[in-house]
Amino acid sequence: MRQSLDWFQRAAQVIPGGIYGHVQPAAGLPGVFPYFAQSGRGCRYRDVDGREYLDFMCGFGPVILGYGHPAVEEAAARQRAEGGGEVFNHPSPRMVELAEYLTGRIDFADWAVFAKNGSDLTTWAVQVAREHTGRKKVAMARGAYHGVDAWCTPGRGGVLPEDRALVATFAWNDLDGLAGLFRKEGDDLAAVILTPYHHPGFGPSVLPAPGFWAGVERLCREQETVLILDDIRAGFRLHAGGSHRAFGFTPDLAVYCKALANGYTISAAVGREELRGAAGRVFLTGSYWNNPVAMAAARACLETIVREAVPERLEKMGRRLRAGLEGAARRHGFRLTMTGPESMPQPALEGDPDLFLLQRFCAGAVARGVFFHPHHNWFLGAAHTEQDIDAAVAVAEICWAEMAEERERAAGSARG
Amino acid sequence: MRQSLDWFQRAAQVIPGGIYGHVQPAAGLPGVFPYFAQSGRGCRYRDVDGREYLDFMCGFGPVILGYGHPAVEEAAARQRAEGGGEVFNHPSPRMVELAEYLTGRIDFADWAVFAKNGSDLTTWAVQVAREHTGRKKVAMARGAYHGVDAWCTPGRGGVLPEDRALVATFAWNDLDGLAGLFRKEGDDLAAVILTPYHHPGFGPSVLPAPGFWAGVERLCREQETVLILDDIRAGFRLHAGGSHRAFGFTPDLAVYCKALANGYTISAAVGREELRGAAGRVFLTGSYWNNPVAMAAARACLETIVREAVPERLEKMGRRLRAGLEGAARRHGFRLTMTGPESMPQPALEGDPDLFLLQRFCAGAVARGVFFHPHHNWFLGAAHTEQDIDAAVAVAEICWAEMAEERERAAGSARG
Repeated sequence: MRQSLDWFQRAAQVIPGGIYGHVQPAAGLPGVFPYFAQSGRGCRYRDVDGREYLDFMCGFGPVILGYGHPAVEEAAARQRAEGGGEVFNHPSPRMVELAEYLTGRIDFADWAVFAKNGSDLTTWAVQVAREHTGRKKVAMARGAYHGVDAWCTPGRGGVLPEDRALVATFAWNDLDGLAGLFRKEGDDLAAVILTPYHHPGFGPSVLPAPGFWAGVERLCREQETVLILDDIRAGFRLHAGGSHRAFGFTPDLAVYCKALANGYTISAAVGREELRGAAGRVFLTGSYWNNPVAMAAARACLETIVREAVPERLEKMGRRLRAGLEGAARRHGFRLTMTGPESMPQPALEGDPDLFLLQRFCAGAVARGVFFHPHHNWFLGAAHTEQDIDAAVAVAEICWAEMAEERERAAGSARG
Repeated sequence: MRQSLDWFQRAAQVIPGGIYGHVQPAAGLPGVFPYFAQSGRGCRYRDVDGREYLDFMCGFGPVILGYGHPAVEEAAARQRAEGGGEVFNHPSPRMVELAEYLTGRIDFADWAVFAKNGSDLTTWAVQVAREHTGRKKVAMARGAYHGVDAWCTPGRGGVLPEDRALVATFAWNDLDGLAGLFRKEGDDLAAVILTPYHHPGFGPSVLPAPGFWAGVERLCREQETVLILDDIRAGFRLHAGGSHRAFGFTPDLAVYCKALANGYTISAAVGREELRGAAGRVFLTGSYWNNPVAMAAARACLETIVREAVPERLEKMGRRLRAGLEGAARRHGFRLTMTGPESMPQPALEGDPDLFLLQRFCAGAVARGVFFHPHHNWFLGAAHTEQDIDAAVAVAEICWAEMAEERERAAGSARG
């Protein structure tokens, strides 16, 4: 950890908090977690101290195919060699090809636009809904993460009551709650924005209850409110055609980011024909938004996801991981549940309200070269093999055994 | 133009408007302007029809050193080879090195953070000012461009009156107007955000009047209002230490983007020590914000700017271009003024309120392989040589001559 700490001390001089955002180590992570990454390959990466980890975070999602995946890197290198530049005065044919690919692949999509980050497009999608409906308000699930813009950020710094004045919230899976919002705000509800399943930070994930999505769709259709799917985190991991296909509903507009280009910087929004006019009227641009390298990488990534049936593979590996981890915990007297979809499991431990035991477990795994995170859902990737899963489970077994011993000792000294 | 039009027709099927944002060709550009770029090298690029242009837009700013600059591409390739990934679970040492470089190079900067786009950080900077001051309002110059977020976008689609309720505007260079805002809103004015000089779209650029910046600084200091410099467009083109150095003032917080990494996707904010606490409390993150390739590219770009004294070179080339273009226009009876700084000239033509003549001029140049833009300031780049400038002026001479003939003919037929 010497190098990680040295770099962190340097960082703390010139960056507020040293490290910020979702990769911030100060968010209650035990000291064994590394702070800086050096390099990666497949489902493994090295930190700046040269320690190697079998990775279950995939860069917090983007790296769906593994670090440095050949098909994506080749497409990016080819575009770099052919194009010779990162941005031009115009878009390139890669933008058209990617939009054609997405609208061909995603069943309800008639058009696509591109940006650089999830927040860019969740916020833009809400504006498109406002432009389309002439209404102001937006409904979201309490605790959902839709980005860092003031209307939705989980942060409190610099956020004003005014930023939230047009946002109404209801509890995930509470159709009556949403119906109540529609009764109250229906004729001023421009959009309902939801993730395909509920993945709040620092807590268990919750899948949609039977009938939830059908009910959401019905309410939106009745009131002509735009149904926005925030598929930034889950998109293309649960289904190669978008996560709505995994849960059997149809949004009006969807936003993708993480798994889109295996780590290359790009996000996308797609929508129905009815929204094309409004989408064209909400100004959307940025210095680097026509970068053809990221667009070539995205297409190669999506094609690989389809060709190699990646969502099915991730689900299978995730099921193996879940069974292995839950069984190992049980054998040592811990009640672990992997919540959420198989390919994006979020661990939850019974009798662990402060996540202290989960932190202890993940720290044990990290110290043994398996990167598990206690506060965020994990991500399976196409580079994970059955051997990798079994190796991770074997490490988990050792961690649970160690924790069981500690518990015994603590109970012993309490009795003694 | 066949290929450009073919691609555009395909684009129009799957993208609202076909092409959106600042590169939108539909924004009144004559048909001779290409729609799609194929490749670039130095200060030249090719469109999809294989036509080559001597470029004076540099990708609307980012490509300060020229397309595919060796030092930047080598740094990016080295990081790619060493790191093997675009994003990891943690930042890399490249983030620390870049923050150290920026805080060492920019005189007032005690810390730095990174994002992916200008808008990300102008909006974040306003939030930091709110967090620091506990106030709500922000003052900006009318017509200034600070990005596409709802509080400042030049677009109207999807923007509500509520989005602008906390934004007060004054006229650029009107110190009395700003003083009036301070009298009215002073104790609720969190920030004044300004570009280093005024560069509204579709019109002449305006340099700061003598005393303007000193007055702005004084008003902000007196009221403890945060002075935010939006140096996204001009940063590192006017001065290697940031544009405030070119105009002799000191902001509290500054935001950079375009010229930061020669086209690689990254933006940066830097600030004074007093703002470090607030900066740490305004949540800032994104899926790709720790990309070490873009950070390695940024450092190589900034080092090259310093080593090769790029701002001085651009100023010299810009002066040569200005003199050449203004002289050529004059010889044919047109009164052209290149407004704004030498290295970022915005053409303005007397007696051309609808920009029709300017469009005609730029279209003539584009048809002859010199890419001039009639609606946006141009950008000089380090790849421009004296020969390139002279070649562009020679083309301009032909264009003005042609336009003078047209004018003669029109006058003749009016008389006839």
